[in-house]
Parts: sequence; C-alpha cells; structure tokens
Amino acid sequence: MAMRYFEDFAPGEVLTLAPRHVTRAEVIAFAAEFDPQPFHLDEQAPASALVGGLIASGWHVSALFMRMICDAFLVDSSSMGSPGITTLKWQKPVRPGDTLSGTCTVIEARRSKSRPEMGIVRFRHEVVNQSGEVVMWLENPILFAARDGGRP
Amino acid sequence: MAMRYFEDFAPGEVLTLAPRHVTRAEVIAFAAEFDPQPFHLDEQAPASALVGGLIASGWHVSALFMRMICDAFLVDSSSMGSPGITTLKWQKPVRPGDTLSGTCTVIEARRSKSRPEMGIVRFRHEVVNQSGEVVMWLENPILFAARDGGRP
Repeated sequence: MAMRYFEDFAPGEVLTLAPRHVTRAEVIAFAAEFDPQPFHLDEQAPASALVGGLIASGWHVSALFMRMICDAFLVDSSSMGSPGITTLKWQKPVRPGDTLSGTCTVIEARRSKSRPEMGIVRFRHEVVNQSGEVVMWLENPILFAARDGGRP
Repeated sequence: MAMRYFEDFAPGEVLTLAPRHVTRAEVIAFAAEFDPQPFHLDEQAPASALVGGLIASGWHVSALFMRMICDAFLVDSSSMGSPGITTLKWQKPVRPGDTLSGTCTVIEARRSKSRPEMGIVRFRHEVVNQSGEVVMWLENPILFAARDGGRP
C-alpha cells in the first residue's frame, strides 16, 4: 500500500473498512477491563433484559473501529493523531456475532496555517453491521504530515 | 455505595474519579490490539519523535476514563448506557507513568418525555494528569432508569 500524506486526501473520497467479526469472548473481555456494566458482561443480568441481551461497550465499538481504520489506511499514512471527536453516536447496539464494516468519507482537507508542514483532514466515519444498519457514526479531524514538508 | 437512580443527579453536582496510574505495558498492549500507530507502540519510531515520545491512544484514555466512571458511580447506578458523545477533546498526550484522575459534572438532568421511566443526565467529564493538566474532556449524555419507574 502506498504511504498516504495530507495531499492524498480529497473531499468526497470514501475509504472502505474491511469486515470485522465481533465475538462474545472479546465483548466480555473488553467490558471486564474497561466498562463493567452488567449489560456488557452478562446476558442473564436484569439490566441486559432492558437492552435485549448482551451488548458491546460503545468504547469497545470505538476501539474496534479504530483498528479497522488503522488497517484500512492509517498505519500506512503520515498520521500525527487526532485532537478529538466532533460528534459520535452509538446508534444501534453491537452484539456478539455481529460483523462490522464501514466507510470513512473525507469532508474537508486543509493545510494548517500555523504549521504548514501538516494538514487537518475532517472525516465522517460510519460503522455498519451485517444487516447494513449504522451502529455508530462519528465525525473527527485527523492530522497528517504533508509530503512537501510545508514547502509547496 | 447506595444505588443511584435518575432522581439522584442534580445539575452542578461534581463526582470525583479515583486516581489511575498508566503503565507502559498497558499503553503498548492496547495499541497493539486497537490502535497500532507507531507513536502508540514504539518510543524509537520516527513518528514518536514528532509527539515527544510514546503516547497512549486517545481511545485507550477514553477506555480508562470509562473504567474510572464505572468504579466511581456507574456500576452502582441504574445506567442504561449512552447514545453517544457530544464533543470530546484529547487535549494533552497521556504518557506511560502518568496518573489520571478527574471529575464528572452534571450539566442537566431531565426526564424523558417519551419514556418517563428513565431520564437523560448530561455530563461534562474532565480527566487530568498528575500535574493538574486536563488531558481529555468530553460532554455526553447517559441514560438512567428512574427510581419511581415513571410514576412520579
């Protein structure tokens, strides 16, 4: 895969995320470490009945999404990280046995005025399940070093 | 700890998060699984020089924060999960050896009109390091079942 720099992202481009199966064991392992609410840990908990059974932590879905974008393009890029999340919605539950996939759409790509050696790429990311339902979407900026080092 | 329901959250209340030390091993383990960008994995990577050394994945900081709020009050509550994040900023890097703590401030608490058996509590959460610097802040709503079951 060719190394992607700031200059390689153009508004309207859609990057595709490869499918990722979600297992019961990993849902419970993540929850036990980071989000031990009963509906993330135990199908039999009373709280799980209210949400239709065991569901993955929203932060687990976020972390799985992060791995998906790393594998799709971020690790082979000049990424310098992200300052945050503009908005994120956990729209539908993710359950053991689901298969996630998704897209990252470039909304805007602009060079930093104060640091022209890098640019800010704003994305809208969508994660869908095997039924095509959007389970999570978020908008966030990611910083990328420019290929030209700020000397266009 | 007494079980907290929707009725137990009032605007202005500040809940305190107990300190959490962050180790190099866990920073690297999380990154290897979910966010294998070089500056989360390897101090010697060229990309790490640009960010002043190894830094924790922002999603790892988010997950550690989630565990801190679970331990502080969420597991002993009627939490029904969260629909998402209004805004989140990863404001300063978190590095191995840091100790995180923080606060959750109740901004608003209102009963759901369509589902009066629950309410929406909007929080502003802040995570600080051992120097008192805010490393991450976020605003998000969390749903809680009402003690009165919707029959006030």
